[in-house]
Amino acid sequence: MDERLGGIEFGGTKTVCVVGGRGVVEHEERFPTGSPEQVMDACAAFFAAHEVAAIGLGAFGPCDPDPDSPTHGWITTTPKPGWRDVDLLGGLRARLGDLPMGFDTDVNVAALGELAHGAGVGLSSLVYLTIGTGVGGGGIVDGRLVHGLVHPEMGHMRIPRSDAERTTFPGVCPFHGDCFEGVGAGPALAARWGDPAQDIGADDPRYAAMWDLEADYLAVTLHAIVCVLSPQRIVVGGGVGAQRVLLERVRPRLQASLAGYIVSPAILEGIDTYVVPPALGAQSGGIGALELAGLALTR
Amino acid sequence: MDERLGGIEFGGTKTVCVVGGRGVVEHEERFPTGSPEQVMDACAAFFAAHEVAAIGLGAFGPCDPDPDSPTHGWITTTPKPGWRDVDLLGGLRARLGDLPMGFDTDVNVAALGELAHGAGVGLSSLVYLTIGTGVGGGGIVDGRLVHGLVHPEMGHMRIPRSDAERTTFPGVCPFHGDCFEGVGAGPALAARWGDPAQDIGADDPRYAAMWDLEADYLAVTLHAIVCVLSPQRIVVGGGVGAQRVLLERVRPRLQASLAGYIVSPAILEGIDTYVVPPALGAQSGGIGALELAGLALTR
Repeated sequence: MDERLGGIEFGGTKTVCVVGGRGVVEHEERFPTGSPEQVMDACAAFFAAHEVAAIGLGAFGPCDPDPDSPTHGWITTTPKPGWRDVDLLGGLRARLGDLPMGFDTDVNVAALGELAHGAGVGLSSLVYLTIGTGVGGGGIVDGRLVHGLVHPEMGHMRIPRSDAERTTFPGVCPFHGDCFEGVGAGPALAARWGDPAQDIGADDPRYAAMWDLEADYLAVTLHAIVCVLSPQRIVVGGGVGAQRVLLERVRPRLQASLAGYIVSPAILEGIDTYVVPPALGAQSGGIGALELAGLALTR
Repeated sequence: MDERLGGIEFGGTKTVCVVGGRGVVEHEERFPTGSPEQVMDACAAFFAAHEVAAIGLGAFGPCDPDPDSPTHGWITTTPKPGWRDVDLLGGLRARLGDLPMGFDTDVNVAALGELAHGAGVGLSSLVYLTIGTGVGGGGIVDGRLVHGLVHPEMGHMRIPRSDAERTTFPGVCPFHGDCFEGVGAGPALAARWGDPAQDIGADDPRYAAMWDLEADYLAVTLHAIVCVLSPQRIVVGGGVGAQRVLLERVRPRLQASLAGYIVSPAILEGIDTYVVPPALGAQSGGIGALELAGLALTR
């Protein structure tokens, strides 16, 4: 009999607890990400009602996924009030006992979900990029999640823009101004186009201009990801990222930007299946958290 | 008794054969990279004289390091005359018999050498970037070489430049114009500054201007590498890359570009040991090839 697994996605605004098996969410519960104590108590209550053999945690960043670090499982330098230097993994262990637990970034966990049960089945490498209120990227190389110094922060690459563009809009990232997140995430679209991306209608002329420019920026970001990580597939998710209007525009631009240099059928002929939306839809994170729990159990 | 290992570095202009043990080159021989037949015959002659238990190969790209691919061990779409679609690994097996052999890109092999015996000892992730006549990048994540779709091509990222810069110099990459290789490798420096980088003296005012601009470009390239791969250390080698005048300039620029966002002591306080020249000097590739041979033997 397969043991039941648990997962938690800690998001900046909401937290999701799930139970299920590998590849299947059987039950989920969502609540606002209040104070750390509130959230950890709510998670503990959920798992008191749903017995599981292991739990996988995906957390917003910056956080510390390094198992050899003294702050492993912590949320570290977040600007989110009350959440700086919070020992999330330790707090859950204190409440739930010594269950096997895995901890990683929310986007790495989503990448794991897509690799194991979604758009990446059969592959050994993948990037999951989410574009919403921020931009996050998770990576898998040779079947393993990318960690290293801290964890990937793919949204914060500096990307090429024209001087005219820079003059018109300096970008909204408090650290870098016009890194990709600073010009391409939801708040940048809202600041620049006067409306949240979703609210500009398809018949508004700004609509096409916005998505064209967004696709230009995303294409050079993906170009860099291809050059550095050479993933076998790129999954683009998030409220902004998974829009068909964007993915349709970015694919030919990525091909044009790479300019035939990366000689792979996936890019030269199969771009429609190289840059894809999440196959698991909104469940990449939940299914990824269950997968991480499964890995923690067999470790 | 340790078995002796062999290594071959196939470079665009010269090929190097080595024998030794893990971390030690005992003997090496260099010859020009002539035709594939000439080179493979010369390698076979070398290893007829030096018996080894396994051989590690590092090759210029584009090549195919994917062990599951039908063209594994081939040089693929190179512009180098006579070398397109050459089955290097197969040709060596035909000459040397069924020895265990490992095959990877020259830069991945150099990264492996630095990880195992050089600047990366004790780490699990590393990027090795070489800037010479071209720019290549090798990566290691969680102890494993980065492959994926093809292999990394870190030199071909598009990087931010001002419009004035773009007007002054469009870059020399035949594919991308002003990707990092197109503005930052030796031929770009020669095209722009009128002399090969090495020949501009320290008292020539162009000298400082050249290295300042080179450091600006390298800093945003490293910024992207940090964001995508989050390596624990970056080794910068090659005739242009390993110059102290460049590394001294790039470190503060990388810190400034990341702007405190990546909260790691390695970047905030230890940048001098985060971006470093190869600890193995010119032997990163040779020692890496021996390491790859050792891995092939124990696989």
